[in-house]
Amino acid sequence: MSIPEPKRRRGRPPKIARENHDTKAELIRSGLEHLTEYGFASSGIDQILKKVGVPKGSFYHYFASKESFGQEVIACYDQYFGRKLDAYLLDETVAPLVRLSGFVDDAKAGMARHSFKRGCLIGNLGQEVDSLPEGFRQQLVDVFGSWQQRVAGCLKAAQEHGSLSRDADCDELAEHFWIGWEGAVSRAKLVQSSRPLDQHLRHFLGSLPG
Amino acid sequence: MSIPEPKRRRGRPPKIARENHDTKAELIRSGLEHLTEYGFASSGIDQILKKVGVPKGSFYHYFASKESFGQEVIACYDQYFGRKLDAYLLDETVAPLVRLSGFVDDAKAGMARHSFKRGCLIGNLGQEVDSLPEGFRQQLVDVFGSWQQRVAGCLKAAQEHGSLSRDADCDELAEHFWIGWEGAVSRAKLVQSSRPLDQHLRHFLGSLPG
Repeated sequence: MSIPEPKRRRGRPPKIARENHDTKAELIRSGLEHLTEYGFASSGIDQILKKVGVPKGSFYHYFASKESFGQEVIACYDQYFGRKLDAYLLDETVAPLVRLSGFVDDAKAGMARHSFKRGCLIGNLGQEVDSLPEGFRQQLVDVFGSWQQRVAGCLKAAQEHGSLSRDADCDELAEHFWIGWEGAVSRAKLVQSSRPLDQHLRHFLGSLPG
Repeated sequence: MSIPEPKRRRGRPPKIARENHDTKAELIRSGLEHLTEYGFASSGIDQILKKVGVPKGSFYHYFASKESFGQEVIACYDQYFGRKLDAYLLDETVAPLVRLSGFVDDAKAGMARHSFKRGCLIGNLGQEVDSLPEGFRQQLVDVFGSWQQRVAGCLKAAQEHGSLSRDADCDELAEHFWIGWEGAVSRAKLVQSSRPLDQHLRHFLGSLPG
């Protein structure tokens, strides 16, 4: 998946305020890259600081701990990814079930652009959740919940549209979509190919009650 | 998933040979536990050695490197898990598709026994494959391939049995089963419940062409 660029303000705000804002955004961006590629345990704060050019002592000026840094990185990824999902899944110019294909195509392109080295930050952290601070677990569950709600909304639109049976349990199907999706992203990283993502979507769409 | 106990020989073989054998087996067993719970990057050799009570210098008496240790641990897990799969999927006293449920029930019990802290070693390592020595990638792909062949064999038995359409592509379905399974194991760890495993099996069986 691609990583959002940090927002840069136009004009010239007060020097110190701007530096604080930019450095914090760059630390979060660098953290996103590292955590998405390597996970939390093997992402040393040192590497992240080095990339951004921030001395180690300054890190605690921006974040109370590695834990709160991780939580801000997760929140940033969630916002970014939620906007991406909305852009596809709420697009009323496209038939509801076709919107899912648009999202999958975007994810395929994002993974290919990064040579299949970057998976899903939330999936990575979920995999190592037992060695993370305990607060991360609920945050990750909530992020999946919000993504699932978005897919469930798209499936409900498909019911309105007449392309999905009214009897389908959209919330349960959306959970099934994301559980399988994380397996597919992990396999795509392993085999360095987008084939597992296509395969997951094809099976998911093929199994929906028409 | 549960981890195999190291085999202990009966009787009294020569002291040094026995110690070598036992210590190596215990190191592999301890490695299996650590890697299944924490992954490779965060599993320090130190912790594994400490648990087995082996001084650090002795490690290289048993294994050429952390890499070759990891490869032996993977091979051990593959053998253990392959035997487990065979025990369920080749059991001719049970209808072919019901054999899959037997395997899933075993996995659910294994995850619950370890408080949902241990996932699938191969899935964990697949997730962090880009930070592992490059030789691990093909080894992990091959392990998934061998598990997929076993499920494909079970699906072919279901075709013979008349409970699966002759038109079904058993190899492709088996790959789909494992890709989703790894997502389900990861989610089960996150939510500390076997519900995702049941959900995956129900959707998989429900989507098969009858």
